Amino acid sequence: MSGEWLRRWRRGGPAERPGGAPAPGPGPPPPALRYRRPKFVPGGGEEAPRGGRAVRGAAPERPLPWGAGYAEVINAEKSEFNEDQAACCQISVRRREPGLEEDEEWLILCSTQFLTGHYWALFDGHGGPDAAIIASNYLHYCIKQKLEEVVGGITEAQPPMHLSGRCVCDSDPQFVEEKHIHAADLVVGALENAFQECDEVIGQEMEATNQTGGCTALAALYFQGKLYVANAGDSRAILVLKDSIVPMSSEFTPESERQRIQHLAFLFPKLLDGEFTRFEFPRRLKGDDVGHKVLYRDYFMEGWGYKTVEKADLKYPLVHGHGKQARLLGTLAVSRGLGDHQLKVIDTNIEVKPFLSCIPKVNVFDFSVHDIKEDDVLIMATDGLWDVLCNDEVAHVVRSFLAENRTDPQRFSELAKCLVCRARGKKRGHQWMLDDSHEASYDDISVFVIPLHNREED
Amino acid sequence: MSGEWLRRWRRGGPAERPGGAPAPGPGPPPPALRYRRPKFVPGGGEEAPRGGRAVRGAAPERPLPWGAGYAEVINAEKSEFNEDQAACCQISVRRREPGLEEDEEWLILCSTQFLTGHYWALFDGHGGPDAAIIASNYLHYCIKQKLEEVVGGITEAQPPMHLSGRCVCDSDPQFVEEKHIHAADLVVGALENAFQECDEVIGQEMEATNQTGGCTALAALYFQGKLYVANAGDSRAILVLKDSIVPMSSEFTPESERQRIQHLAFLFPKLLDGEFTRFEFPRRLKGDDVGHKVLYRDYFMEGWGYKTVEKADLKYPLVHGHGKQARLLGTLAVSRGLGDHQLKVIDTNIEVKPFLSCIPKVNVFDFSVHDIKEDDVLIMATDGLWDVLCNDEVAHVVRSFLAENRTDPQRFSELAKCLVCRARGKKRGHQWMLDDSHEASYDDISVFVIPLHNREED
Repeated sequence: MSGEWLRRWRRGGPAERPGGAPAPGPGPPPPALRYRRPKFVPGGGEEAPRGGRAVRGAAPERPLPWGAGYAEVINAEKSEFNEDQAACCQISVRRREPGLEEDEEWLILCSTQFLTGHYWALFDGHGGPDAAIIASNYLHYCIKQKLEEVVGGITEAQPPMHLSGRCVCDSDPQFVEEKHIHAADLVVGALENAFQECDEVIGQEMEATNQTGGCTALAALYFQGKLYVANAGDSRAILVLKDSIVPMSSEFTPESERQRIQHLAFLFPKLLDGEFTRFEFPRRLKGDDVGHKVLYRDYFMEGWGYKTVEKADLKYPLVHGHGKQARLLGTLAVSRGLGDHQLKVIDTNIEVKPFLSCIPKVNVFDFSVHDIKEDDVLIMATDGLWDVLCNDEVAHVVRSFLAENRTDPQRFSELAKCLVCRARGKKRGHQWMLDDSHEASYDDISVFVIPLHNREED
Repeated sequence: MSGEWLRRWRRGGPAERPGGAPAPGPGPPPPALRYRRPKFVPGGGEEAPRGGRAVRGAAPERPLPWGAGYAEVINAEKSEFNEDQAACCQISVRRREPGLEEDEEWLILCSTQFLTGHYWALFDGHGGPDAAIIASNYLHYCIKQKLEEVVGGITEAQPPMHLSGRCVCDSDPQFVEEKHIHAADLVVGALENAFQECDEVIGQEMEATNQTGGCTALAALYFQGKLYVANAGDSRAILVLKDSIVPMSSEFTPESERQRIQHLAFLFPKLLDGEFTRFEFPRRLKGDDVGHKVLYRDYFMEGWGYKTVEKADLKYPLVHGHGKQARLLGTLAVSRGLGDHQLKVIDTNIEVKPFLSCIPKVNVFDFSVHDIKEDDVLIMATDGLWDVLCNDEVAHVVRSFLAENRTDPQRFSELAKCLVCRARGKKRGHQWMLDDSHEASYDDISVFVIPLHNREED
């Protein structure tokens, strides 16, 4: 939205830059990114030898905040690199003096105070690892910046109508009250804007370095006593509590967002360039179907109807396939995420980006109204885990593992590895198999296990 | 969608016409509708004397299906007429011979069979009573027709890919299975299409007779052992069961659909003709706010942010106000419904219709998986009731009234009257007051009480 930070940053300042890499000044385009694993994974500079799909965790000598666990494994030769990325850090938000205007910003130097948040994120790249790497470098900076922009409102009991705190109209607090606007809504808004800004950054970076690709983004932020989970894509976060499972995200796929996608094609048919049909059918239609009535859905339908097949209906459907096979424009398996600015449908001039959304859905969990037990954890994982394990299975592994490993100081790291191992399975001949002899996950798998009971420790 | 039925009907045929009124043939435009109350209300041709806001019910000598109760009251001089309307009937759906093509329709004459559905609906008109009257005349015909169009699929255990039943591709049943398509999905689709067709009919009727206005629509259909509730507007239906309340609809207002409405304005800014701002603010902005950062939301935000106010932000907001005061384009209090094809923002050329949706959200209740008790009922009511009574209060009235009136054969009618009386309150001086001395409802109020235990009786 603001872009100002980005512009300043691309000019070479301010000092506070993502990743600590040298600032790209004016002049030749920045070089392409070097591939890397997350910084907290030992030997993170390079990919592990892939044949055995060894599970890697965080370095025990540099524990993650709250003693959180992390583990990952590369895919089974689906792509050259592990296209998942992970990030984890504290976010310090500079608290502004109430009533201070931006041009008086120097005054803050005398009275700086910080609010601290904790951040964990997973990114699942596609079409190359680069978008996920950029996102893992920058998203927390975008979040930090967006939180700082509204921090004057967050620290008040009720956000003021005017960020400056000045009351232009006596009944302003009443209007804000009536709309039920709370500090948490500003954090949600900041996350929504941060994803959008990060998407912009990725678009510009990828264009400057002539790279392509995109990634999903799942980010958890603990801030001011609440947990915010922002999701754009098909990763997933769940809370595994003593007696319940609380889903903290939902997946955005061509299937789950069919109506939004079809509606856009209805409003702007040119986006399909005559190559796709916006209707959904249970299967791809063929010549024999023409003239007959077949099952279909249009953008406004949650139910199904019958439609007489015309020749135009034989085109490839905008949203097609089922489950993991569902594709947007025959190209992408997710409908939200970051990047993909240059992505076109193969052999056509049709852009995919207009149908994608970079806006996350944010779910909030308020710790002040829940009694958190010692073994309660937040599980965040890319689709590699959830493709083969459902919420109940994951919760079962979590509870039994933690009950059996009460004293191990590395128990959350070990649990993360255990979950990744479960989903990766074991190699039997050329196949990766689960214990129950179903097929295991051939995808990249990344898992955070975040103990909630430790949240005020740091 | 098809429009064929409408075209045939406007040409003067077929015999099966809504309402039984004379068919408008070619020639002069049809005369404007005569105002009327629902047919099942005694003296239904005219409005009751309004001063006392007498509550009227259905005629006891002509009981409604299932012994359902109905009651209504006119508003407190808000408009000349009671702009609510109600409808209630059986819907007979002609079952087609499987494999029969449309040009073999004459064959059906030899083997006609019917599936029977039950239908109740409420319509809350605005800008005049006409749209609600047309909708109450026609919506059930649209539903009947849309159900007949797909009946070949509804009567199968699993809807066939081809309505004809022919299997063009051996794995067709598998594709349908994979997409989880059941007979109920065809009914949902038929309802969605029926609302759209009814909206088209209303648009053409209103244009032909030079009338304006629109209405909300809440329709309940009992069909093949399931209850379908389709809602477009701010009426509401709930199931009051022995131990629980099941909401069967949600309201569509400028507030609840803010993001959809703002997104459309983002995609097509011309729709606002430079007169409105698409942003939401807690209050209307004024000159003093310019240059300052104030709370705002854009289409992609569920949270709030701060925005530096520009002069353009002083325009009237696309969605403005809170609760019952919320308005779309300063004009309409609902965001879905039928009609309003000609509606423009006063003193401008800005059309409201593009922002409205006529598509209902359909909720399904499957009786085969619920044990229905004798006093379990479906309550349908226009916003006049729900503005002053919440679900819990209504459920409390329902349960205590039915417990105290076990043997009265008119108990469901009496309960409907009781609910309307509660919401209308009593006149004290010039005011209508509830028992708890809060203000009562000044709106039109209409209520159906539908006993679910009687559903297989007719």
